[in-house]
Amino acid sequence: MLAEIITIGDEILIGQVIDSNSAFLADELNKIGIRVGKITSIGDNREQIITALDDALKNAGLIIITGGLGPTNDDITKQTLADYFNSKLVLNTTVLDHIKTLLSLRGVKISERNRRQAELPDNCRILHNALGTAQGMWFEKNGKAFISLPGVPFEMKTIMMEYALPMIREAFRPSPIQHLTILTHGLAESAMANKIASWENNLSPSIKLAYLPSPGILRLRLSVYDSANEAGRMLSEELSRLKHIIDDHIFGYNDDTLEELVGNLLREKGHTLSVAESCTGGKIASMVTSVPGCSDYFKGSVTAYSNASKCDLLGVDPDFIKKFGAVSQPVVEEMARGVRERFGADVSVATTGIAGPSGGTQEKPVGTTWIAVSTAGSTISQRFSFGEHRGRNIQRAAISALFMLRKELITIS
Amino acid sequence: MLAEIITIGDEILIGQVIDSNSAFLADELNKIGIRVGKITSIGDNREQIITALDDALKNAGLIIITGGLGPTNDDITKQTLADYFNSKLVLNTTVLDHIKTLLSLRGVKISERNRRQAELPDNCRILHNALGTAQGMWFEKNGKAFISLPGVPFEMKTIMMEYALPMIREAFRPSPIQHLTILTHGLAESAMANKIASWENNLSPSIKLAYLPSPGILRLRLSVYDSANEAGRMLSEELSRLKHIIDDHIFGYNDDTLEELVGNLLREKGHTLSVAESCTGGKIASMVTSVPGCSDYFKGSVTAYSNASKCDLLGVDPDFIKKFGAVSQPVVEEMARGVRERFGADVSVATTGIAGPSGGTQEKPVGTTWIAVSTAGSTISQRFSFGEHRGRNIQRAAISALFMLRKELITIS
Repeated sequence: MLAEIITIGDEILIGQVIDSNSAFLADELNKIGIRVGKITSIGDNREQIITALDDALKNAGLIIITGGLGPTNDDITKQTLADYFNSKLVLNTTVLDHIKTLLSLRGVKISERNRRQAELPDNCRILHNALGTAQGMWFEKNGKAFISLPGVPFEMKTIMMEYALPMIREAFRPSPIQHLTILTHGLAESAMANKIASWENNLSPSIKLAYLPSPGILRLRLSVYDSANEAGRMLSEELSRLKHIIDDHIFGYNDDTLEELVGNLLREKGHTLSVAESCTGGKIASMVTSVPGCSDYFKGSVTAYSNASKCDLLGVDPDFIKKFGAVSQPVVEEMARGVRERFGADVSVATTGIAGPSGGTQEKPVGTTWIAVSTAGSTISQRFSFGEHRGRNIQRAAISALFMLRKELITIS
Repeated sequence: MLAEIITIGDEILIGQVIDSNSAFLADELNKIGIRVGKITSIGDNREQIITALDDALKNAGLIIITGGLGPTNDDITKQTLADYFNSKLVLNTTVLDHIKTLLSLRGVKISERNRRQAELPDNCRILHNALGTAQGMWFEKNGKAFISLPGVPFEMKTIMMEYALPMIREAFRPSPIQHLTILTHGLAESAMANKIASWENNLSPSIKLAYLPSPGILRLRLSVYDSANEAGRMLSEELSRLKHIIDDHIFGYNDDTLEELVGNLLREKGHTLSVAESCTGGKIASMVTSVPGCSDYFKGSVTAYSNASKCDLLGVDPDFIKKFGAVSQPVVEEMARGVRERFGADVSVATTGIAGPSGGTQEKPVGTTWIAVSTAGSTISQRFSFGEHRGRNIQRAAISALFMLRKELITIS
């Protein structure tokens, strides 16, 4: 049984919004063993919606539609679905009460627009939207299920997880697909492919491998579509073979993030962290603090963008900057030691580099970056040469810093 | 003339990668007056690719395909296109030399995988990929154009801008669509719709309005598809009418970002900036430093996550924290003053709040946030109540802080 996803919204077709909903839905469907055959994005247009529904019906047993359920005039999905499934819109008083309550909590009186959001097709099952005024809807036709969800990501996600997904499981009883994603750092796609060529060529034919590169991280995804009972064993055997070749580069699996892994290590070992950033400009701190509960181990950070602030706030010797330059090994090590002491932290990480596009020299071109990790016992540092693109340099430097920090945390007691 | 976009890659269908390429392509096509009718994502699968090409041919005159051109075994787009357009793969020595040069710059010897990337269909025009080994390809069939681009975003973007887009302009000579996007802060979608209802109802029928909400920012997009000559005048008239209603909430247009606008104001006025963050955890500094050239005005920041660091590094009175709590008006104002003085900056912004999911109380629930902006002349502050979701709270707090900072920068000399 295949699923298809249809996202509705002119904003996607003119490129103003990146469709992140589809990735979320596809991930959740795959986890319960439903493959997504196609994702289609179309405009807020009645004919396009109807054509897309007809097309999806040809191949899929489950069709999930997001978007176009808002209170404003450009949102036409609900009326189009009501017509498509030959239903009438009727006022649902339970939904109306919910909308009233929700708006009163926000200190807003219900408007005619909001009231109309409680008018729903009479032949669908309503999927409660606890966080918003646009309800989800479940239609059935010829043994196939159609689910309409709002386009606002957090509302869509909540309805999907709490209502739609359990109903999909119940209706289709899928057998699971198994994926294992191996997260690596330090090898580009071609270099990795060469390094693991003999392992890849000997993979079982029922396992599929994909390379998923992003700045600083290369993910290797193994998928087993058949032999569901054997899948777990097959994947763990392949992984242990792979570990013999690239163990040094592997830092996590599946949905792991470096910032969470670093956080877990800090909590386990009872260590605290502080961060000094120059070229990464707050990115490392921002990644570390994206993790709930990080105040248990994160003391804080300094973004020392000016040379003066490297000296005043982090205690870097001004002579070091004069002699070696701000992007140098002595400076990054001083930054790391300085920020560890200022915050009274056990461990610290520091970056200094030339993010670009300007500021490069022959000796230190754009992308040149020093990273240091400091503990009470030692301070280590490494020079990196990233690329020419500012955003990617910042991203790669932040990832490399967290990777170095993780290695050091594993080593120390 | 309509365009369609096809993105190829299993990683999209299993939800492991968000398709950001389509938004970029759609935006660029729209800017030169080519509407995108549909975006389709399919897997690395020969039959799916062929079906998608056949489908796209029915409605579109231009089809752009991304993905599946890498050196690894899962990449099958090139061979499939060669078969679809009845061509043979032949070794292109110019491309081979380019690949060799590129790899030698990276200190890598050419492998058989990379050499095969220089084998290209004999009936396509090659679109040079200066940044990578996978070339772009331009095919023609029945007066329609098919462009194949690599999936790696920065390679795809460079080929699109330097080769594909000029060739599309030349081949199709489109007449432009005009969009004007108005960026607002401080009103949610429903509240905005009510506030501007009479303006919206009186819009000319050839103008289309869309509401594009995201955390902290609501964009209003006006599009004129017809009367191209009149479009500029029509849009500026509508904008000046709209400004009478919501001028206070408008901060920019089209691709403007708050961090760039703040940067421009700082540079114009010759002021420097420093930032103190608690709940935003480095997000504001990270946004400010994403702008090239920000070292002209950005001195640095402190992320003071612990109470001790708020006192030690920013000079907050420990008694204030005891008496009013870390999330309070006196503390946020001290943080702003402190960070301005420590970095010797002219202007500063500070945040303290409860990002969640834990840490909320009855009096100060999750989402409660104080933001302050400090100059030599004054320190102003404001309390906000955001929501329950950590990531969105951080995002909304950072946007609100930059919005407050922008207002203050406009006021001061």
